[in-house]
Amino acid sequence: MIKIFQKYLLNEIPLTKDMGLEITQFSDEQLELIAPLANNVNDKGSVFGGSSSALMIIAAWSLIKLNCQTHEVEADIVIHKNQTLWNKPLYDDLCIVAKFNESYDFKQVKKQIEKAKHQRIECLIELLDDERNIYSTMVANYVIIPTSNDSEG
Amino acid sequence: MIKIFQKYLLNEIPLTKDMGLEITQFSDEQLELIAPLANNVNDKGSVFGGSSSALMIIAAWSLIKLNCQTHEVEADIVIHKNQTLWNKPLYDDLCIVAKFNESYDFKQVKKQIEKAKHQRIECLIELLDDERNIYSTMVANYVIIPTSNDSEG
Repeated sequence: MIKIFQKYLLNEIPLTKDMGLEITQFSDEQLELIAPLANNVNDKGSVFGGSSSALMIIAAWSLIKLNCQTHEVEADIVIHKNQTLWNKPLYDDLCIVAKFNESYDFKQVKKQIEKAKHQRIECLIELLDDERNIYSTMVANYVIIPTSNDSEG
Repeated sequence: MIKIFQKYLLNEIPLTKDMGLEITQFSDEQLELIAPLANNVNDKGSVFGGSSSALMIIAAWSLIKLNCQTHEVEADIVIHKNQTLWNKPLYDDLCIVAKFNESYDFKQVKKQIEKAKHQRIECLIELLDDERNIYSTMVANYVIIPTSNDSEG
């Protein structure tokens, strides 16, 4: 499931291929991905903040998308807003973990989407090194929009 | 000056090349860049939020960096935090404009940096189409750090 989804990402969102994104773990509650420093380096030899931001955004989006697929929710997922804090530079490959910021019942989400209602989801995403030290944190808010009714408020 | 700086970006931060970044305008107060939709597209055919975020981050960083170069400020610039809002999807090439959120006197910045003091700079960045409609806004905070004293508070 992860491999098929990753292939979809790399084909459909070319920047994910440029960044060397690889999904390493997915459960209903959490998604983890990695990416090499070389693709995402800045002029100081550390991780480019734009790269980590983009990978954190796609990690949480993927967590929601895969949960929608699991529960056969027919919907688009779009980012609405986010806040990011960078604590210190990372001079190594990236590991990114995305979680839900509260518990969501996707059976309920499915019911709401079937009623053509939008659903709001908040995620917490962290940039880590391979020893699980935290370098950056993001809170990101997404909207799940019924595909049958894209224009609904 | 813009062309030399752009070449620096594309060489030193490979993702800027992947995104097709092109700086089109720079003054002391504002920097503008463009990028093609094709490099930055998502699975819906609109701009990938991770791409726009990364381009907005580098636009404001470049505005500060070029101002530092103009005033011969010997310093690194790092992003500290940001907040982004996405209003609606953009199905076209990207135009990004970065400005300072207040007026900064870089002669004063230079004096502070020479005293080994950090300087905090807040920028406002917008994602626009070619008719100047706004699709996303970011407030981003950067720190200018004296290169001679990277570890100072």
